[in-house]
Amino acid sequence: MAETIIKIDLKKSPYENEMIHNRWHPDIPMVKTVKPGDDFIIECYDWTGGQIANNDSADDVRDVDLTQVHFLSGPVGVEGAEPGDLLVVDILDIGAFQESQWGFNGFFSKQNGGGFLTEHFPEAQKSIWDFNGMFTKSRHVPNVEFAGLMHPGLIGCLPSKEMLLEWNKREKELYDTEPERVPALATLPYADTAHMGKMAPDAAKVAAAEGARTVPPREHGGNCDIKDLSRGSKIYFPVYVKGGGLSVGDLHFSQGDGEITFCGAIEMAGWIHLRVNLIKDGMAKYAIKNPIFKPSPIAPKYDDYLIFEGISVDEYGEQHYLDVHVAYRQACLNAINYLTKFGYSKAQAYSILGCAPVQGHISGVVDIPNACATLWLPTDIFDFDINPSAEGPSKKVSPGMDVPLSKDK
Amino acid sequence: MAETIIKIDLKKSPYENEMIHNRWHPDIPMVKTVKPGDDFIIECYDWTGGQIANNDSADDVRDVDLTQVHFLSGPVGVEGAEPGDLLVVDILDIGAFQESQWGFNGFFSKQNGGGFLTEHFPEAQKSIWDFNGMFTKSRHVPNVEFAGLMHPGLIGCLPSKEMLLEWNKREKELYDTEPERVPALATLPYADTAHMGKMAPDAAKVAAAEGARTVPPREHGGNCDIKDLSRGSKIYFPVYVKGGGLSVGDLHFSQGDGEITFCGAIEMAGWIHLRVNLIKDGMAKYAIKNPIFKPSPIAPKYDDYLIFEGISVDEYGEQHYLDVHVAYRQACLNAINYLTKFGYSKAQAYSILGCAPVQGHISGVVDIPNACATLWLPTDIFDFDINPSAEGPSKKVSPGMDVPLSKDK
Amino acid sequence: MAETIIKIDLKKSPYENEMIHNRWHPDIPMVKTVKPGDDFIIECYDWTGGQIANNDSADDVRDVDLTQVHFLSGPVGVEGAEPGDLLVVDILDIGAFQESQWGFNGFFSKQNGGGFLTEHFPEAQKSIWDFNGMFTKSRHVPNVEFAGLMHPGLIGCLPSKEMLLEWNKREKELYDTEPERVPALATLPYADTAHMGKMAPDAAKVAAAEGARTVPPREHGGNCDIKDLSRGSKIYFPVYVKGGGLSVGDLHFSQGDGEITFCGAIEMAGWIHLRVNLIKDGMAKYAIKNPIFKPSPIAPKYDDYLIFEGISVDEYGEQHYLDVHVAYRQACLNAINYLTKFGYSKAQAYSILGCAPVQGHISGVVDIPNACATLWLPTDIFDFDINPSAEGPSKKVSPGMDVPLSKDK
Amino acid sequence: MAETIIKIDLKKSPYENEMIHNRWHPDIPMVKTVKPGDDFIIECYDWTGGQIANNDSADDVRDVDLTQVHFLSGPVGVEGAEPGDLLVVDILDIGAFQESQWGFNGFFSKQNGGGFLTEHFPEAQKSIWDFNGMFTKSRHVPNVEFAGLMHPGLIGCLPSKEMLLEWNKREKELYDTEPERVPALATLPYADTAHMGKMAPDAAKVAAAEGARTVPPREHGGNCDIKDLSRGSKIYFPVYVKGGGLSVGDLHFSQGDGEITFCGAIEMAGWIHLRVNLIKDGMAKYAIKNPIFKPSPIAPKYDDYLIFEGISVDEYGEQHYLDVHVAYRQACLNAINYLTKFGYSKAQAYSILGCAPVQGHISGVVDIPNACATLWLPTDIFDFDINPSAEGPSKKVSPGMDVPLSKDK
Repeated sequence: MAETIIKIDLKKSPYENEMIHNRWHPDIPMVKTVKPGDDFIIECYDWTGGQIANNDSADDVRDVDLTQVHFLSGPVGVEGAEPGDLLVVDILDIGAFQESQWGFNGFFSKQNGGGFLTEHFPEAQKSIWDFNGMFTKSRHVPNVEFAGLMHPGLIGCLPSKEMLLEWNKREKELYDTEPERVPALATLPYADTAHMGKMAPDAAKVAAAEGARTVPPREHGGNCDIKDLSRGSKIYFPVYVKGGGLSVGDLHFSQGDGEITFCGAIEMAGWIHLRVNLIKDGMAKYAIKNPIFKPSPIAPKYDDYLIFEGISVDEYGEQHYLDVHVAYRQACLNAINYLTKFGYSKAQAYSILGCAPVQGHISGVVDIPNACATLWLPTDIFDFDINPSAEGPSKKVSPGMDVPLSKDK
Repeated sequence: MAETIIKIDLKKSPYENEMIHNRWHPDIPMVKTVKPGDDFIIECYDWTGGQIANNDSADDVRDVDLTQVHFLSGPVGVEGAEPGDLLVVDILDIGAFQESQWGFNGFFSKQNGGGFLTEHFPEAQKSIWDFNGMFTKSRHVPNVEFAGLMHPGLIGCLPSKEMLLEWNKREKELYDTEPERVPALATLPYADTAHMGKMAPDAAKVAAAEGARTVPPREHGGNCDIKDLSRGSKIYFPVYVKGGGLSVGDLHFSQGDGEITFCGAIEMAGWIHLRVNLIKDGMAKYAIKNPIFKPSPIAPKYDDYLIFEGISVDEYGEQHYLDVHVAYRQACLNAINYLTKFGYSKAQAYSILGCAPVQGHISGVVDIPNACATLWLPTDIFDFDINPSAEGPSKKVSPGMDVPLSKDK
Repeated sequence: MAETIIKIDLKKSPYENEMIHNRWHPDIPMVKTVKPGDDFIIECYDWTGGQIANNDSADDVRDVDLTQVHFLSGPVGVEGAEPGDLLVVDILDIGAFQESQWGFNGFFSKQNGGGFLTEHFPEAQKSIWDFNGMFTKSRHVPNVEFAGLMHPGLIGCLPSKEMLLEWNKREKELYDTEPERVPALATLPYADTAHMGKMAPDAAKVAAAEGARTVPPREHGGNCDIKDLSRGSKIYFPVYVKGGGLSVGDLHFSQGDGEITFCGAIEMAGWIHLRVNLIKDGMAKYAIKNPIFKPSPIAPKYDDYLIFEGISVDEYGEQHYLDVHVAYRQACLNAINYLTKFGYSKAQAYSILGCAPVQGHISGVVDIPNACATLWLPTDIFDFDINPSAEGPSKKVSPGMDVPLSKDK
Repeated sequence: MAETIIKIDLKKSPYENEMIHNRWHPDIPMVKTVKPGDDFIIECYDWTGGQIANNDSADDVRDVDLTQVHFLSGPVGVEGAEPGDLLVVDILDIGAFQESQWGFNGFFSKQNGGGFLTEHFPEAQKSIWDFNGMFTKSRHVPNVEFAGLMHPGLIGCLPSKEMLLEWNKREKELYDTEPERVPALATLPYADTAHMGKMAPDAAKVAAAEGARTVPPREHGGNCDIKDLSRGSKIYFPVYVKGGGLSVGDLHFSQGDGEITFCGAIEMAGWIHLRVNLIKDGMAKYAIKNPIFKPSPIAPKYDDYLIFEGISVDEYGEQHYLDVHVAYRQACLNAINYLTKFGYSKAQAYSILGCAPVQGHISGVVDIPNACATLWLPTDIFDFDINPSAEGPSKKVSPGMDVPLSKDK
């Protein structure tokens, strides 16, 4: 059996574990070193570090401290890795802990994080998803069950010093264009809640003030939240520092394209089994800027879809110019409205789009002025037929608890 | 054999055929009427109406008259169809004409149309794709061959009068924000080159002045350019006028998500075999605003991919806010750069992304400030291995003709 | 457009066309010669040469002259092909003729051909399948519709003289073990109805007496009736004579594994578009005895299945030893009985298993004394849900015409 | 987390565990009782009960005591289950134990068990497969790695008394036709090594003498060795005794169709997570004789194949009549010979066919006198290209240890 090189204790705060960090910085010390060809297991907190509980209240989602996220396990050094190499990572498996067979999905309050449809779902809500082997279902979203497309929401190597400075610079410039905005345009370095891993206290203090937040995806990968980067896939990461420094966290049991609920996928604590190899000087050999990857040979197959179109005229009738973001929002709203015809609440429908292996395609981006995006809703996750018919829909959804909501304080 | 209810003659101008039109207007007369349950065949011009030839010069792409497009076949009336119904359309098959077994892909000059990567490919270029049964290859883009994912780029029902006015209003408002822009922000009604089908001359003159251009996708579907709306799929179209008025054109032999080259897919003339049915009052029954559809059971399977990530920091280093358009552009540029390492020119690589069944996914849209988009490049369309390896790439592309380019005059 | 190198006239007897033959013999002259890399189209009679009509009587199936089959188009010579080479054949497309958009499936009378379940269906029956673009349905088998998995039931190169002698010898030996058996154990050479293509009359007379019948699959491929050798696949055929001599016929619109109804698949006349290439000395290079092939990238996807098991205890309770034939028969009977619970007649159910893209797997062949075979019934070809549920099945099949039966005379 | 209702200790003999049994008999007492809707975990010995070790000698395969197999976990009672019901079983997950991340594949000596190709591999051989997360590879079979298609080789409900008698009768009749045969035609009851679970000693003694051996698949399912009955699938089992009495064992990490090596798949000890439900009176409702099942939504996708044909002329040139067993053997031999051209030994190639997710199709069973079977070899499990090319194969297989062989004593 592969060695577990990073262990965690769910009963303890991630701040107590020096193999965890929650900022990106080139100077965070490696917590372990492995060799090319090795495989090993890394345990991970859920992205919030345990702030969300398995219960029927959304208070914890409403009150979450987002300056703490994401708690990452690592960085792991790889012998021989040098800037310019590609670190080849095979995700051999992912799982939840035996004692923690559940995950959560939530909508953040517009006052604290927001989300893709925050105008329509402005207050905190939460659904809990129980895992039964490879499958999941939720007491808050009846009549759906599906196999997990487990993946790390966040994985990548440490940035170089130059790259870090560039990140901070460009994000600050954006932030400064509208500094009062809620939600903010960007998450800037924030030392108070930084966890700099094994760094010595003095150095950590300095680094915390400039350590990049983990929220956005960047050149190194990071918080890409790509559902198809799932267990079984093979990823080629750019290396920027000696040893590579691979960190991982934010495990998801499943997610729809876009991670539209922001909190986010079906979020879980768990473990990830990895194997690493190197392509020396691979960045130049293959002109690599961002990571590239091969999808898994063992992803769940939910390939019968009902596909919803959206165009870049928003829900208020306003015309936008080739805006895929607006177009995808319309496709999502169209799907939500459709599902309500079968008895789902809008929050339940939104949860489904955030949690199930929904595809979001950029279908047309040149037909001025309208972008066209499509949302692919898998039909086989429902225990009834959701396809249209001449008879029209009937209320199929079993009565039960809706997605809990906690009003803003 | 099903009846061919609309015939065309490739040797004649589409303007001579009164079963063709190139504007949207509720008053365009039905050219044929069919019954629910009927299946029938419709012949279609390529979207430009024959402006592009099978040769090795891009002059015709450079000089194309885009005010003429798209030439559509129809409208076809369906007995019993009324506003509020859903018109269920099965695409039973699509094909090119025996005497016209080829298609074209082009990049418009930035001066005349532009495209998704027009800053990088500012001048007109064209590739010709020959069809060999279900497969295609190009003398301008060696070492790729793939089966066609044939689909209509443009299909939908006539708008109501109210809907037409709304389209014109919102697009004019957008246009007016930057009326001098090249390419324009929107294509407004333009009477000079309008073809109003069977409309009587006086009425046609009036209607031409307000008929919506066919360029963008809209609520009725229209020019969605969704590659997966392919032969074998089933589509549910909103009906806005009595009889429905289904028109179709802009047939594509294949296309990548986004239709990023704008001209566009592998564009072809050909025929489409359809079957129609109705869901009475289906729009209300299912809360339908835009068309929905089921994908085909017989689409080409190129499901081994190399996936490229892009984030919403543009190629000049500027930070954008959750902009999927920018993110997808980066993923495309990353793929293009990758392919050059095997010997493709950038134009050849761009053609591949525009023509092959490339997927474009909206992977993350909430992780401020970066959207993450992924481009899925099918690996099995190449006759050599394009996956990364420790050895690095070698020049694999056979020497030959590059994609012809015609400089702006 | 590719050249049609072999043309047929459905209104004329295949015996009048010297590009057709119905026996295997090394001396049948090539009807055309092509070059490696060429693609071309070949037209084909249905396997019976037009003996079966599109009507509602099975008399023609009952009275069929099986000594005539199969009518093949060819042989086509390939420049440079020599014994020991592999002839690489790409099936670029297959289609029915515009004027002949239908096919037939039948059960032969036990007195004249029989079939896999001939004890259960001892009399001639026939179903007619209409083609609507890529899809088919039958007035005799309601509530099913599916896309065609078009393939040549029979394709291969001419045998060498030595191979022919070996075929005749071994089949005669088997035949002689039970010469009175009905149906016979093997089909021996039969000169009366032989069609030897372009052979000169005297030579033809001699060759007809020894020409191998086309019924069984053999080393060269021949009548393999492999549904997955469908349009889009690539096949590597052994070459035994100079020029190869590729012949093809017995086109099927669709078929289930096993071709269990014997007459057989959905049988049709039509055309096939091929491309040929050579691997010199390929038989030795790859130790090839029988053809090998790659499946198509564009086969219909009906991949939700209900799977039936069968073991090698026959329907009369008798124990057989690791007999896959018996086991598959049980799986088929189990599926037929299951379908009757939804209102299908047994003949309708048998037709479905013969025509639809049913899979037959050799699941276990070592667990003495029982072989285990599985029949995979695609569920998406039905317009109702055939999966089991707690409520049990209800009669879903629309009333209509059953599969016509003609009693033995 | 679901409860583990049957636990085992790999360090102890299965004979010491009264929740294990190795014969089928209606009177074996239930070891646990669950309710419809429950999910639970069952631990299982490997089928030999630990007779095979992770080493480089095949002595244990040669000397295996096959009268002991298979060690099953159960029977588990289900509240409310009665004869005539269908027991619906969802396989929620399967895994190996943390401390036992490996499996074995072997060929039995012809003197002790034999196998499908025992004439070609008459002596005992063994390969060991290490598990790395969801993937496996073997030090004895280089250059292949693939994700597991984990499944129980053996699962089913207790037979009724009548059914048991019928099994014993028909198998004894077959056995008696050639009682001296090696390997035997059937495995008859054998009391000496019987393990009757919780049965009281006196009753166990009586039952052991008539308890059916677990080797063959039968009406209840049993040792079907169907690779696609994998984790994620849903199975409908006939119920013959009050409470059902579900037993399971013989877990496989992966297997090819046919389980042609007999010992067998990649055999492992491990656990299986199940959920049970009932369809009351389901056998009559759906005319069920043998189990039926739905395949998993989360099976590994290795869907690029090289397909080998075989016909029912055996490797010695003898003609058989529509014998799928012979035909599949030829397809297997063809594949083995093909693989040797890339440097594999025949034993390595045979192991691959037994272990990898190879498909075996019954392609044609009516074209007298030759059945046609196809073996589908997945190409993506190899780390080099195994497709044919004009250049011919080169030795690609890494040097190393061949599959260990132990000569008969």
